[in-house]
Amino acid sequence: MVEVRRKVLKENDLLARRLRDRFQSAGTRVISLVSSPGSGKTTLLERLLTDLRQDNRVAALVGDLATENDAARLARSGAAVKQITTGTVCHLDAGMVERALSDWPLEELDYLFIENVGNLVCPSSFDLGEDLRLVLVSTSEGEDKPLKYPTIFNTADVAVITKLDMAEAAGIDMDLLVQNIHGVRPGMPIMKVSARSGRGISELEQFLTSTRADLKAAYVQ
Amino acid sequence: MVEVRRKVLKENDLLARRLRDRFQSAGTRVISLVSSPGSGKTTLLERLLTDLRQDNRVAALVGDLATENDAARLARSGAAVKQITTGTVCHLDAGMVERALSDWPLEELDYLFIENVGNLVCPSSFDLGEDLRLVLVSTSEGEDKPLKYPTIFNTADVAVITKLDMAEAAGIDMDLLVQNIHGVRPGMPIMKVSARSGRGISELEQFLTSTRADLKAAYVQ
Repeated sequence: MVEVRRKVLKENDLLARRLRDRFQSAGTRVISLVSSPGSGKTTLLERLLTDLRQDNRVAALVGDLATENDAARLARSGAAVKQITTGTVCHLDAGMVERALSDWPLEELDYLFIENVGNLVCPSSFDLGEDLRLVLVSTSEGEDKPLKYPTIFNTADVAVITKLDMAEAAGIDMDLLVQNIHGVRPGMPIMKVSARSGRGISELEQFLTSTRADLKAAYVQ
Repeated sequence: MVEVRRKVLKENDLLARRLRDRFQSAGTRVISLVSSPGSGKTTLLERLLTDLRQDNRVAALVGDLATENDAARLARSGAAVKQITTGTVCHLDAGMVERALSDWPLEELDYLFIENVGNLVCPSSFDLGEDLRLVLVSTSEGEDKPLKYPTIFNTADVAVITKLDMAEAAGIDMDLLVQNIHGVRPGMPIMKVSARSGRGISELEQFLTSTRADLKAAYVQ
């Protein structure tokens, strides 16, 4: 099992590297989102697509085990959206992304968002060739998620705390959550947003649209 | 990969059957909990252990990738608790359960709870020999989870809607959530609880402690 898994991961890494080269030469910035089911990936993405497509050419791939509901929701933003249904597979892989992109001319895209299957474990091992991976954690999930799922925080670039509007009802200790994120991943950039109220959204969008150099600088801080 | 996976699942099924026989002959009722990370498994379980141990001999196994935090939390109930840390594995399997039980005399237990790793995908394929599997979904996760993760609902016996106290803040459409559960699994018993306010807890406990025959009857309804 371990042997087979190692081979699968190695093949994925090679494919992801090829994808990353393609994205770079096409000038497409690729941003992926991972989180538990129900952390608000689709709601946040709907907001980001709607806003960013005012001035940019944006598209999204969205992964789920079943249903095309998310693609339908995201299509309301007016952006091009494609659903990848994975069946029983708990994550996207680079091959699925490559196949989904086969008839999309990347040169015509400034931003490509990839919403992974809702899962805090499986997606961590699979590079999708993205420039930036956001890990979302909602205020209603408790403060301990970074400690219990360290790998997903370690393979992401930015933590986004979602459902800020529910923080009080959830009774979350925000300082402790931030402390736990940094306990697992010191210096990780953290953004706080509410897609419902709009709080923090423009800061996140500014962060995502800043140049690659800026992002790397922010990350080192 | 598929071949190897099939072999692993078959071995798990054999082991789970053996466990189920052991539980039955020891007179131990085994109840497992599955859900997304952050749906409130540990908080609910803390409450159930505290209450049930007044009149019963209860214990719990709790699975996580990393940390023994949950075992420490659950131990406050006074029940015997053992943590299983899975490393990078996104679910418990029957072998892990068997090993964790090696030095526990089952005959001295009326109830054994098993809290799975927080995940709506991986645990669905692995029988743990339990009598009853509860799938938790919190009011803050949205109404669409049953549609997007049908397999986990199909392999569970009872759905428990948690965080009832947050339903309003989350703006959930409870009728739609119930409809979606029954869309995937017609007739599935649904319990609604808030471990924080205590609402629905005694009904759930009554449900869990009713005889096995009663449970099967409830399930058929």
